[in-house]
Amino acid sequence: MNILKQPTSYTWVEQAITNIDTILLDHSHCERKAAGVALNLMFRYPSNTKLVRDLTAIAREELEHFELVNQWLERRGIPLAPLSSPPYAAGLKATIRPAEPNRLLDSLLISGLIEARSHERLGLLATHCPDPELAEFYHSLMASEARHFGIYWVLADTYFDRDIVKMRLDELAIKESELLSTLHPEPRIHS
Amino acid sequence: MNILKQPTSYTWVEQAITNIDTILLDHSHCERKAAGVALNLMFRYPSNTKLVRDLTAIAREELEHFELVNQWLERRGIPLAPLSSPPYAAGLKATIRPAEPNRLLDSLLISGLIEARSHERLGLLATHCPDPELAEFYHSLMASEARHFGIYWVLADTYFDRDIVKMRLDELAIKESELLSTLHPEPRIHS
Repeated sequence: MNILKQPTSYTWVEQAITNIDTILLDHSHCERKAAGVALNLMFRYPSNTKLVRDLTAIAREELEHFELVNQWLERRGIPLAPLSSPPYAAGLKATIRPAEPNRLLDSLLISGLIEARSHERLGLLATHCPDPELAEFYHSLMASEARHFGIYWVLADTYFDRDIVKMRLDELAIKESELLSTLHPEPRIHS
Repeated sequence: MNILKQPTSYTWVEQAITNIDTILLDHSHCERKAAGVALNLMFRYPSNTKLVRDLTAIAREELEHFELVNQWLERRGIPLAPLSSPPYAAGLKATIRPAEPNRLLDSLLISGLIEARSHERLGLLATHCPDPELAEFYHSLMASEARHFGIYWVLADTYFDRDIVKMRLDELAIKESELLSTLHPEPRIHS
Protein backbone atom coordinates (compact mmCIF):
# COMPACT_ATOMS: atom_id res chain seq x y z
CA MET A 1 0.00 0.00 0.00
CA ASN A 2 1.77 3.10 -1.19
CA ILE A 3 0.46 5.40 1.52
CA LEU A 4 3.07 3.85 3.86
CA LYS A 5 6.19 5.99 3.93
CA GLN A 6 8.66 3.16 4.61
CA PRO A 7 8.35 -0.54 3.87
CA THR A 8 8.82 -3.05 6.67
CA SER A 9 12.44 -4.10 7.21
CA TYR A 10 13.58 -7.65 6.64
CA THR A 11 14.65 -7.84 10.29
CA TRP A 12 10.96 -7.72 11.26
CA VAL A 13 10.21 -10.62 8.89
CA GLU A 14 13.00 -12.68 10.46
CA GLN A 15 11.84 -11.83 13.97
CA ALA A 16 8.23 -12.70 13.12
CA ILE A 17 8.94 -15.97 11.32
CA THR A 18 11.19 -17.25 14.11
CA ASN A 19 8.51 -16.36 16.68
CA ILE A 20 5.41 -17.28 14.74
CA ASP A 21 3.46 -18.53 17.79
CA THR A 22 3.90 -15.20 19.58
CA ILE A 23 2.93 -13.40 16.37
CA LEU A 24 -0.25 -15.48 16.18
CA LEU A 25 -1.13 -14.65 19.78
CA ASP A 26 -0.43 -10.96 19.19
CA HIS A 27 -2.49 -11.10 16.01
CA SER A 28 -5.43 -12.36 18.05
CA HIS A 29 -5.08 -9.35 20.38
CA CYS A 30 -4.81 -7.04 17.35
CA GLU A 31 -8.11 -8.25 15.89
CA ARG A 32 -9.89 -7.81 19.22
CA LYS A 33 -8.36 -4.36 19.71
CA ALA A 34 -9.36 -3.35 16.17
CA ALA A 35 -12.96 -4.32 16.97
CA GLY A 36 -12.72 -2.31 20.19
CA VAL A 37 -11.41 0.77 18.40
CA ALA A 38 -14.24 0.64 15.83
CA LEU A 39 -16.80 0.24 18.61
CA ASN A 40 -15.32 3.13 20.59
CA LEU A 41 -15.58 5.40 17.56
CA MET A 42 -19.23 4.37 17.17
CA PHE A 43 -19.79 5.28 20.85
CA ARG A 44 -18.11 8.64 20.43
CA TYR A 45 -19.95 9.67 17.26
CA PRO A 46 -23.39 8.02 17.62
CA SER A 47 -25.09 10.53 15.29
CA ASN A 48 -22.75 10.06 12.30
CA THR A 49 -24.87 7.55 10.41
CA LYS A 50 -22.32 6.56 7.77
CA LEU A 51 -19.57 6.21 10.36
CA VAL A 52 -21.77 4.07 12.60
CA ARG A 53 -22.88 1.86 9.71
CA ASP A 54 -19.41 1.35 8.23
CA LEU A 55 -17.70 0.79 11.56
CA THR A 56 -20.33 -1.74 12.63
CA ALA A 57 -19.37 -3.77 9.57
CA ILE A 58 -15.68 -3.41 10.40
CA ALA A 59 -16.19 -4.40 14.05
CA ARG A 60 -18.15 -7.48 13.00
CA GLU A 61 -15.44 -8.51 10.56
CA GLU A 62 -12.64 -7.97 13.10
CA LEU A 63 -14.49 -10.21 15.55
CA GLU A 64 -14.84 -12.84 12.83
CA HIS A 65 -11.08 -12.67 12.21
CA PHE A 66 -10.48 -12.77 15.97
CA GLU A 67 -12.37 -16.08 16.03
CA LEU A 68 -10.38 -17.40 13.06
CA VAL A 69 -7.03 -16.48 14.62
CA ASN A 70 -8.14 -18.08 17.89
CA GLN A 71 -8.90 -21.29 15.99
CA TRP A 72 -5.28 -21.23 14.77
CA LEU A 73 -4.07 -20.73 18.34
CA GLU A 74 -6.11 -23.71 19.46
CA ARG A 75 -4.85 -25.81 16.57
CA ARG A 76 -1.25 -25.07 17.53
CA GLY A 77 -1.92 -25.54 21.26
CA ILE A 78 -1.16 -21.91 22.11
CA PRO A 79 -3.23 -20.84 25.13
CA LEU A 80 -4.91 -17.43 25.14
CA ALA A 81 -2.82 -15.12 27.31
CA PRO A 82 -2.20 -11.41 27.76
CA LEU A 83 0.75 -9.94 25.86
CA SER A 84 2.43 -6.57 26.41
CA SER A 85 1.75 -4.06 23.65
CA PRO A 86 4.59 -2.67 21.55
CA PRO A 87 4.94 1.16 21.62
CA TYR A 88 3.35 1.44 18.14
CA ALA A 89 -0.35 1.99 18.92
CA ALA A 90 0.30 4.22 21.92
CA GLY A 91 2.73 6.27 19.84
CA LEU A 92 0.13 6.75 17.13
CA LYS A 93 -2.60 7.51 19.64
CA ALA A 94 -0.43 10.27 21.12
CA THR A 95 -0.59 12.10 17.77
CA ILE A 96 -4.39 12.44 17.94
CA ARG A 97 -5.23 16.11 18.45
CA PRO A 98 -7.68 16.36 21.38
CA ALA A 99 -10.11 19.00 20.04
CA GLU A 100 -12.88 18.17 17.57
CA PRO A 101 -13.13 17.94 14.63
CA ASN A 102 -9.39 17.17 14.47
CA ARG A 103 -9.85 14.32 16.90
CA LEU A 104 -12.22 12.54 14.53
CA LEU A 105 -9.98 13.09 11.50
CA ASP A 106 -6.87 11.84 13.28
CA SER A 107 -8.69 8.85 14.76
CA LEU A 108 -9.95 7.76 11.33
CA LEU A 109 -6.57 8.24 9.64
CA ILE A 110 -4.64 6.42 12.35
CA SER A 111 -7.01 3.47 12.20
CA GLY A 112 -6.57 3.52 8.43
CA LEU A 113 -2.79 3.56 8.71
CA ILE A 114 -2.79 0.63 11.13
CA GLU A 115 -4.95 -1.33 8.66
CA ALA A 116 -2.56 -0.42 5.83
CA ARG A 117 0.46 -1.58 7.83
CA SER A 118 -1.34 -4.77 8.86
CA HIS A 119 -2.09 -5.41 5.20
CA GLU A 120 1.61 -5.07 4.36
CA ARG A 121 2.79 -7.26 7.23
CA LEU A 122 0.22 -10.02 6.73
CA GLY A 123 1.39 -10.03 3.11
CA LEU A 124 4.98 -10.54 4.26
CA LEU A 125 3.85 -13.37 6.56
CA ALA A 126 1.89 -14.90 3.66
CA THR A 127 5.07 -14.84 1.54
CA HIS A 128 7.60 -15.96 4.11
CA CYS A 129 5.71 -18.24 6.51
CA PRO A 130 7.08 -21.79 6.10
CA ASP A 131 3.70 -23.40 6.98
CA PRO A 132 1.76 -23.26 3.69
CA GLU A 133 -1.65 -23.45 5.37
CA LEU A 134 -0.85 -20.64 7.78
CA ALA A 135 0.62 -18.65 4.88
CA GLU A 136 -2.65 -19.14 3.01
CA PHE A 137 -4.57 -17.96 6.08
CA TYR A 138 -2.53 -14.75 6.21
CA HIS A 139 -3.11 -14.29 2.51
CA SER A 140 -6.87 -14.68 3.00
CA LEU A 141 -6.99 -11.82 5.53
CA MET A 142 -5.03 -9.31 3.45
CA ALA A 143 -7.93 -8.16 1.28
CA SER A 144 -9.98 -7.18 4.36
CA GLU A 145 -7.17 -5.09 5.79
CA ALA A 146 -6.87 -3.19 2.50
CA ARG A 147 -10.66 -2.75 2.38
CA HIS A 148 -10.69 -1.48 5.96
CA PHE A 149 -8.05 1.11 5.10
CA GLY A 150 -10.35 2.17 2.25
CA ILE A 151 -13.35 2.50 4.57
CA TYR A 152 -11.44 4.69 7.02
CA TRP A 153 -10.16 6.81 4.15
CA VAL A 154 -13.65 7.26 2.66
CA LEU A 155 -15.03 8.19 6.09
CA ALA A 156 -12.33 10.84 6.53
CA ASP A 157 -13.11 12.07 3.02
CA THR A 158 -16.84 12.16 3.88
CA TYR A 159 -16.48 14.41 6.90
CA PHE A 160 -13.45 16.51 5.89
CA ASP A 161 -12.06 18.46 2.96
CA ARG A 162 -9.91 16.21 0.77
CA ASP A 163 -6.86 18.48 0.83
CA ILE A 164 -6.91 18.53 4.62
CA VAL A 165 -7.27 14.73 4.72
CA LYS A 166 -4.35 14.21 2.35
CA MET A 167 -2.07 16.62 4.19
CA ARG A 168 -2.82 15.10 7.58
CA LEU A 169 -2.52 11.53 6.29
CA ASP A 170 0.90 12.44 4.98
CA GLU A 171 2.01 13.78 8.37
CA LEU A 172 0.65 10.78 10.24
CA ALA A 173 2.16 8.31 7.76
CA ILE A 174 5.61 9.80 8.44
CA LYS A 175 5.04 9.35 12.17
CA GLU A 176 3.80 5.79 11.59
CA SER A 177 6.98 4.80 9.74
CA GLU A 178 9.16 6.50 12.35
CA LEU A 179 7.53 4.41 15.09
CA LEU A 180 8.55 1.23 13.26
CA SER A 181 12.04 2.38 12.26
CA THR A 182 13.59 0.69 15.31
CA LEU A 183 12.60 -2.96 15.71
CA HIS A 184 10.85 -3.55 19.06
CA PRO A 185 12.71 -6.39 20.83
CA GLU A 186 9.51 -8.38 21.47
CA PRO A 187 7.98 -9.99 18.37
CA ARG A 188 4.65 -8.38 17.55
CA ILE A 189 2.56 -7.68 14.44
CA HIS A 190 3.55 -4.04 14.89
CA SER A 191 7.02 -4.45 16.47
CA MET B 1 -37.92 -15.65 32.57
CA ASN B 2 -38.51 -16.62 36.14
CA ILE B 3 -35.19 -15.40 37.48
CA LEU B 4 -36.64 -11.87 37.42
CA LYS B 5 -38.02 -10.97 40.84
CA GLN B 6 -40.76 -8.62 39.61
CA PRO B 7 -42.51 -8.50 36.25
CA THR B 8 -42.54 -5.25 34.28
CA SER B 9 -45.43 -2.96 35.17
CA TYR B 10 -48.11 -2.08 32.65
CA THR B 11 -47.20 1.60 33.01
CA TRP B 12 -43.90 0.80 31.27
CA VAL B 13 -45.75 -0.86 28.40
CA GLU B 14 -47.98 2.21 28.00
CA GLN B 15 -44.99 4.54 28.13
CA ALA B 16 -43.07 2.44 25.59
CA ILE B 17 -45.92 1.99 23.12
CA THR B 18 -46.77 5.70 23.10
CA ASN B 19 -43.08 6.54 22.53
CA ILE B 20 -42.12 3.74 20.22
CA ASP B 21 -39.70 5.85 18.14
CA THR B 22 -37.68 6.77 21.23
CA ILE B 23 -37.77 3.14 22.33
CA LEU B 24 -36.38 2.10 18.94
CA LEU B 25 -33.56 4.64 19.21
CA ASP B 26 -32.79 3.53 22.76
CA HIS B 27 -32.90 -0.09 21.64
CA SER B 28 -30.21 0.71 19.07
CA HIS B 29 -28.02 2.14 21.84
CA CYS B 30 -28.72 -0.93 24.00
CA GLU B 31 -27.50 -3.33 21.31
CA ARG B 32 -24.32 -1.32 20.80
CA LYS B 33 -23.72 -1.09 24.54
CA ALA B 34 -24.29 -4.83 24.94
CA ALA B 35 -21.62 -5.47 22.29
CA GLY B 36 -19.32 -3.05 24.15
CA VAL B 37 -19.86 -4.80 27.48
CA ALA B 38 -19.08 -8.22 25.97
CA LEU B 39 -15.94 -6.83 24.33
CA ASN B 40 -14.81 -5.16 27.56
CA LEU B 41 -15.14 -8.46 29.42
CA MET B 42 -13.04 -10.13 26.71
CA PHE B 43 -10.41 -7.42 27.20
CA ARG B 44 -10.42 -7.85 30.95
CA TYR B 45 -10.18 -11.67 30.94
CA PRO B 46 -8.13 -12.44 27.82
CA SER B 47 -6.91 -15.82 29.13
CA ASN B 48 -10.35 -17.28 29.91
CA THR B 49 -10.79 -19.23 26.69
CA LYS B 50 -14.46 -20.16 27.12
CA LEU B 51 -15.39 -16.64 28.18
CA VAL B 52 -13.54 -15.14 25.20
CA ARG B 53 -15.10 -17.57 22.75
CA ASP B 54 -18.67 -17.23 24.05
CA LEU B 55 -18.54 -13.46 24.39
CA THR B 56 -17.12 -13.05 20.89
CA ALA B 57 -20.24 -14.79 19.61
CA ILE B 58 -22.47 -12.55 21.77
CA ALA B 59 -20.68 -9.37 20.62
CA ARG B 60 -21.07 -10.39 16.99
CA GLU B 61 -24.77 -11.07 17.47
CA GLU B 62 -25.37 -7.79 19.32
CA LEU B 63 -23.73 -5.91 16.43
CA GLU B 64 -25.96 -7.79 13.99
CA HIS B 65 -29.01 -6.72 16.02
CA PHE B 66 -27.65 -3.18 16.20
CA GLU B 67 -27.63 -3.15 12.39
CA LEU B 68 -31.17 -4.52 12.25
CA VAL B 69 -32.52 -1.95 14.72
CA ASN B 70 -30.75 0.78 12.75
CA GLN B 71 -32.51 -0.40 9.61
CA TRP B 72 -35.81 0.09 11.46
CA LEU B 73 -34.72 3.59 12.48
CA GLU B 74 -33.92 4.41 8.87
CA ARG B 75 -37.22 2.95 7.68
CA ARG B 76 -39.12 5.17 10.13
CA GLY B 77 -36.97 8.23 9.37
CA ILE B 78 -35.53 8.42 12.90
CA PRO B 79 -32.01 9.88 12.78
CA LEU B 80 -29.27 8.32 14.89
CA ALA B 81 -28.77 10.53 17.93
CA PRO B 82 -27.39 10.30 21.45
CA LEU B 83 -29.91 9.57 24.20
CA SER B 84 -29.43 9.94 27.95
CA SER B 85 -29.20 6.64 29.81
CA PRO B 86 -31.80 5.72 32.44
CA PRO B 87 -30.35 4.99 35.92
CA TYR B 88 -30.78 1.22 35.40
CA ALA B 89 -27.37 0.14 34.04
CA ALA B 90 -25.39 2.50 36.28
CA GLY B 91 -27.39 1.26 39.27
CA LEU B 92 -26.58 -2.34 38.41
CA LYS B 93 -22.94 -1.54 37.70
CA ALA B 94 -22.65 0.00 41.17
CA THR B 95 -23.39 -3.41 42.70
CA ILE B 96 -20.31 -5.00 41.11
CA ARG B 97 -17.83 -5.81 43.85
CA PRO B 98 -14.42 -4.41 42.84
CA ALA B 99 -12.13 -7.28 43.93
CA GLU B 100 -11.65 -10.40 41.83
CA PRO B 101 -13.01 -13.01 41.56
CA ASN B 102 -16.24 -11.32 42.73
CA ARG B 103 -15.93 -8.72 40.01
CA LEU B 104 -16.09 -11.38 37.29
CA LEU B 105 -19.03 -13.17 38.91
CA ASP B 106 -21.03 -9.96 39.38
CA SER B 107 -20.23 -8.74 35.85
CA LEU B 108 -21.46 -11.99 34.30
CA LEU B 109 -24.63 -12.11 36.40
CA ILE B 110 -25.53 -8.49 35.77
CA SER B 111 -25.09 -8.91 32.04
CA GLY B 112 -27.28 -12.00 32.31
CA LEU B 113 -29.97 -10.13 34.24
CA ILE B 114 -30.02 -7.32 31.68
CA GLU B 115 -30.47 -9.90 28.93
CA ALA B 116 -33.29 -11.55 30.90
CA ARG B 117 -35.05 -8.22 31.40
CA SER B 118 -34.58 -7.34 27.73
CA HIS B 119 -36.13 -10.68 26.81
CA GLU B 120 -39.17 -9.89 28.97
CA ARG B 121 -39.57 -6.35 27.62
CA LEU B 122 -39.08 -7.24 23.96
CA GLY B 123 -41.77 -9.85 24.56
CA LEU B 124 -44.10 -7.16 25.89
CA LEU B 125 -43.35 -4.98 22.88
CA ALA B 126 -43.98 -7.96 20.57
CA THR B 127 -47.39 -8.44 22.23
CA HIS B 128 -48.51 -4.82 22.49
CA CYS B 129 -46.89 -3.02 19.56
CA PRO B 130 -49.66 -1.92 17.16
CA ASP B 131 -47.38 -2.23 14.08
CA PRO B 132 -47.50 -5.96 13.25
CA GLU B 133 -44.17 -5.94 11.38
CA LEU B 134 -42.36 -4.19 14.20
CA ALA B 135 -44.05 -6.55 16.67
CA GLU B 136 -42.73 -9.47 14.64
CA PHE B 137 -39.26 -7.93 14.69
CA TYR B 138 -39.34 -7.71 18.49
CA HIS B 139 -40.53 -11.29 18.62
CA SER B 140 -37.64 -12.39 16.39
CA LEU B 141 -35.05 -10.96 18.81
CA MET B 142 -36.46 -12.53 21.97
CA ALA B 143 -34.86 -15.95 21.53
CA SER B 144 -31.38 -14.39 21.35
CA GLU B 145 -31.87 -12.45 24.56
CA ALA B 146 -32.91 -15.64 26.36
CA ARG B 147 -29.94 -17.49 24.87
CA HIS B 148 -27.57 -14.72 25.94
CA PHE B 149 -28.86 -14.96 29.51
CA GLY B 150 -28.11 -18.68 29.29
CA ILE B 151 -24.55 -18.04 28.08
CA TYR B 152 -23.82 -15.63 30.93
CA TRP B 153 -25.31 -18.09 33.41
CA VAL B 154 -23.22 -21.00 32.06
CA LEU B 155 -20.07 -18.84 32.17
CA ALA B 156 -20.74 -17.94 35.80
CA ASP B 157 -21.37 -21.62 36.50
CA THR B 158 -18.08 -22.52 34.73
CA TYR B 159 -15.89 -20.30 36.84
CA PHE B 160 -17.76 -20.38 40.18
CA ASP B 161 -19.40 -22.78 42.56
CA ARG B 162 -23.08 -23.21 41.69
CA ASP B 163 -24.37 -22.39 45.20
CA ILE B 164 -22.42 -19.12 45.19
CA VAL B 165 -23.74 -18.27 41.72
CA LYS B 166 -27.34 -18.93 42.72
CA MET B 167 -27.09 -16.92 45.93
CA ARG B 168 -25.51 -13.93 44.25
CA LEU B 169 -27.91 -14.06 41.30
CA ASP B 170 -30.76 -13.94 43.79
CA GLU B 171 -29.31 -10.83 45.49
CA LEU B 172 -28.65 -9.07 42.20
CA ALA B 173 -32.09 -9.96 40.82
CA ILE B 174 -33.69 -8.24 43.83
CA LYS B 175 -31.60 -5.14 43.14
CA GLU B 176 -32.50 -5.31 39.43
CA SER B 177 -36.23 -5.29 40.15
CA GLU B 178 -35.84 -2.49 42.70
CA LEU B 179 -34.15 -0.32 40.08
CA LEU B 180 -37.21 -0.69 37.84
CA SER B 181 -39.82 -0.32 40.58
CA THR B 182 -40.19 3.41 39.86
CA LEU B 183 -40.84 4.21 36.21
CA HIS B 184 -38.11 6.50 34.82
CA PRO B 185 -39.85 9.53 33.27
CA GLU B 186 -37.99 9.18 29.94
CA PRO B 187 -39.09 6.24 27.78
CA ARG B 188 -36.31 3.68 27.54
CA ILE B 189 -36.00 -0.10 27.12
CA HIS B 190 -34.94 -0.17 30.77
CA SER B 191 -36.93 2.81 32.13
